[in-house]
Amino acid sequence: MKIYLAGPDVFLPDAVEIGRRKVAICDRHGLIGLYPLDNSVDLAAADASRQIFHGNEAMMQDADAIIANLTPFRGPGADAGTVYELGYMAGSGKLCLGYCNDPAAYADRARRFTAVSGQHGRLVDAEGLTVEDFGLPDNLMMIHALDVHGAPLVLPRERPADVWHDLTGFEECVRLAAARLGAKS
Amino acid sequence: MKIYLAGPDVFLPDAVEIGRRKVAICDRHGLIGLYPLDNSVDLAAADASRQIFHGNEAMMQDADAIIANLTPFRGPGADAGTVYELGYMAGSGKLCLGYCNDPAAYADRARRFTAVSGQHGRLVDAEGLTVEDFGLPDNLMMIHALDVHGAPLVLPRERPADVWHDLTGFEECVRLAAARLGAKS
Repeated sequence: MKIYLAGPDVFLPDAVEIGRRKVAICDRHGLIGLYPLDNSVDLAAADASRQIFHGNEAMMQDADAIIANLTPFRGPGADAGTVYELGYMAGSGKLCLGYCNDPAAYADRARRFTAVSGQHGRLVDAEGLTVEDFGLPDNLMMIHALDVHGAPLVLPRERPADVWHDLTGFEECVRLAAARLGAKS
Repeated sequence: MKIYLAGPDVFLPDAVEIGRRKVAICDRHGLIGLYPLDNSVDLAAADASRQIFHGNEAMMQDADAIIANLTPFRGPGADAGTVYELGYMAGSGKLCLGYCNDPAAYADRARRFTAVSGQHGRLVDAEGLTVEDFGLPDNLMMIHALDVHGAPLVLPRERPADVWHDLTGFEECVRLAAARLGAKS
């Protein structure tokens, strides 16, 4: 069974190596990991971004499940490209799994980026926009999508020293996928 | 035909009023707007966030299309909940439309939140993570999803004075939806 490996891992300096490690973990559990950077794309081409999109969409269509890395990326919440892919796989009826290497609640993460205050019984940011305050680690759509379309978000008890390279939560997702999907085919 | 009205509009202090305006615009173009806050949810309930999720998912399943407000929210890119919903609708084979009231390229927006520098031929942020630099207004997955599953992202020539209340781009999406889907049914 094939797992689409979504995450901002592709933006890391060692993106290719992280992909190799993730694919190797899948292999050890009898699953085939599909990593976006394995698509062949001509980055010098004028339509490089479109080639990447089509490669990723084809990989998702080919996959039986997604494991999404929802570790906060350049802000209080998950990477938008990863979140789009999680939604796409949920809409496609595929198994949805995810992990996040930051166990903090969303409202606490938001405080790292903006002033958060109480106003008329709700939390708001510096712009006056509501800050979700359900005690969840990210936007409720992703968190409950995982509950409903796969398994609850995998979180560490404590934030690991290196949130971008610790694959403990990832491997837990692979275990869950293997239990749900069965062995390689 | 029914349109799911996705966006961080639900986080505005006047979220209900914005929803009314959006639904009225849909109505003028012969379409039925479905706005998340129209779901009845007991916000005092322990499972309020789950009720919101199920209400939104049911609305999306009922809708023929989505119009996503991808205006940057609490960071350089779109709201994660909205992005999840765009992905869900794309995966469900529905018509996907979107607008964004900030015409800046993603890399320029990222500069407002983090130091961005060139390194070995790529742009990176303060953490050393790649900053997408295709000249697109947001992550390529959403931008090209709109190209492929609906129509190109609607952008203003200039950022309007009030990005959260200007509905020019929204109305352009409604026009596109009406042209694709036909009249009310």
